[in-house]
Amino acid sequence: MDVHIPPFDEHIFNEARMRMDALAKPPGSLGRIEVLGAWLAGCQGQSRPTAERPRVIVFAGDHGVAKAHQVTPYPAEVTPLMVRTFAAGRAAISVLAGQAGATVEVVDCGVNGLPLGNIPTATRVQVVRSPIGPGTRDLVAEPAMTAAQCSAAMRVGAEAADRAANQGCDVIALGEMGIGNTTAAAAVAARLLARPAADLAGPGTGLDMAGVSRKAVAIQRALDRGGPSDPAGALADLGGFEMAALVGCILQGAARSLPVVLDGFIVGASALVAVRLDPRVRPYLLAATRSGEPGHRAILAALGIDEPVLDLGLRLGEATGAALVLPMLRAAAHLLSDMATLDDVLNGRV
Amino acid sequence: MDVHIPPFDEHIFNEARMRMDALAKPPGSLGRIEVLGAWLAGCQGQSRPTAERPRVIVFAGDHGVAKAHQVTPYPAEVTPLMVRTFAAGRAAISVLAGQAGATVEVVDCGVNGLPLGNIPTATRVQVVRSPIGPGTRDLVAEPAMTAAQCSAAMRVGAEAADRAANQGCDVIALGEMGIGNTTAAAAVAARLLARPAADLAGPGTGLDMAGVSRKAVAIQRALDRGGPSDPAGALADLGGFEMAALVGCILQGAARSLPVVLDGFIVGASALVAVRLDPRVRPYLLAATRSGEPGHRAILAALGIDEPVLDLGLRLGEATGAALVLPMLRAAAHLLSDMATLDDVLNGRV
Repeated sequence: MDVHIPPFDEHIFNEARMRMDALAKPPGSLGRIEVLGAWLAGCQGQSRPTAERPRVIVFAGDHGVAKAHQVTPYPAEVTPLMVRTFAAGRAAISVLAGQAGATVEVVDCGVNGLPLGNIPTATRVQVVRSPIGPGTRDLVAEPAMTAAQCSAAMRVGAEAADRAANQGCDVIALGEMGIGNTTAAAAVAARLLARPAADLAGPGTGLDMAGVSRKAVAIQRALDRGGPSDPAGALADLGGFEMAALVGCILQGAARSLPVVLDGFIVGASALVAVRLDPRVRPYLLAATRSGEPGHRAILAALGIDEPVLDLGLRLGEATGAALVLPMLRAAAHLLSDMATLDDVLNGRV
Repeated sequence: MDVHIPPFDEHIFNEARMRMDALAKPPGSLGRIEVLGAWLAGCQGQSRPTAERPRVIVFAGDHGVAKAHQVTPYPAEVTPLMVRTFAAGRAAISVLAGQAGATVEVVDCGVNGLPLGNIPTATRVQVVRSPIGPGTRDLVAEPAMTAAQCSAAMRVGAEAADRAANQGCDVIALGEMGIGNTTAAAAVAARLLARPAADLAGPGTGLDMAGVSRKAVAIQRALDRGGPSDPAGALADLGGFEMAALVGCILQGAARSLPVVLDGFIVGASALVAVRLDPRVRPYLLAATRSGEPGHRAILAALGIDEPVLDLGLRLGEATGAALVLPMLRAAAHLLSDMATLDDVLNGRV
């Protein structure tokens, strides 16, 4: 996948920061919110940015490792059931995206057992069927996917970013669903960061301590197969279809000047791949939440992200953390367009 | 002021937590958001709480200490100008409240030089004129207000809580405006916590280091006058009209079973007075943000609040931090009412 990512507009970013300082409040007194508004401006290349038409995109895929090893307390059959629940508007992300005024796109990147017929969908939700296969192979035993599958999944993600941009969306919030995918994400991150499995393995959606150890052993065996350690190679060897789609979506989102809001651990690991593939993508990324997954810290450090916006102990995924940040982004944009300046106030022009 | 505060409904709170656990996600995987939803339920005494009709209330008052001592970089004349800006819908809180779908009430508790005629107001904003006087007296030299003035200001705040409840609001978010009021708030908190001024004095809206020291000296001189240390006495001796109104509003808000969202440092100090007056108010309080003001930490610790929801370096006041949390509360409430249960999902009922 070859993308052209325009440089983040530092000039517009600084202009927006200066406007924030000139508004009717002490300079800097809205802290991080001011930076968020300026960040939107820098991504979009416009001094009055918007976050009025956010799009939540949830990539879903199944994982061979979930069936072959006890790395998750939920059966793989939960993936297609949750995709149905997203579509029906009754999952956590459906509710949070709805409250944030976002449209939702659910992308089937390879969900095993998802019924072929139409899935009834709620308003503001669209389901896109682009399955690469019925799930990845068991990454402990063999490469999770072929290079061709990985490229195809990246294109699926890039197309989702293009649809968002073409449909007038002004910010994208990315999430995922896939039973077993914290294992894949931890494996990819461990390979790219050259760290042992134990540093990245965590409880995921709810493993106990023995479960985390089992998972770490499985990941270490996968690492010990000695697959490639370049970003695209590691992604194909150890990742998931939804992770590859996330990588493509992140790259193409930045190429379309879209601010990209990252959810937690799995999206973070995918962002790490994207940044290793093209460092110009980095300034377009915002980490929404610090995940409850302990390995997230190492991923954020590698991305050079000091502090996610929220630290609320979320560990669900689905883009739930990213969705919670969207109202803040819209508010930050409106500060730039709707507030009086201090000069206006002091000179009776309000 | 005599209020009857109903006990926070622990039974409904626990019921809501159990429902959160039963929803279509791993138990606890939405972290703090789950607790926020259950907190709303416990305050409102209903298992399907709402945060659909939030009311932001900003209490404004002037401070004699601001004119007599260099405790703030802004002249006292800024207070009435900002009240006008709130009313006109062009201040930071106007924008953030609007984005949160909240109505705004600005209560003049004693703003010096606020024009007597009608102030043109934006939609969704109401201005209530209940001035106790043209600002407090200089708290360094003498009691800031009389006991009668303090009681009257508390009643003004209680009436604002009653208006919100009577108008069908389901959550209140409290803020303030008053040049000089971090000095008053630090003085009240230092007296109640029996700590030296230097522990509570901070930069406020933008003092430099020498300014903070001047402020600490002024506060210490006020403390050394040796005024009363009971909560109502300390409030009258060292506080502000808007702080007393906040105390009355917090007490009456809890009495009306309203969830009360606290903004930063000054609202926090007022909440400390309210809790000392009636500890039953405590469970109705949510700390929205960790203020950039260093003394906020001591106040939160005294309130038994471990972590505010947000930590974004806000130090503006006006209820801006509280307003940013409102969309999260509405989202948390909707999880309880709109999500499918895991049982529904696993049994094909979605």
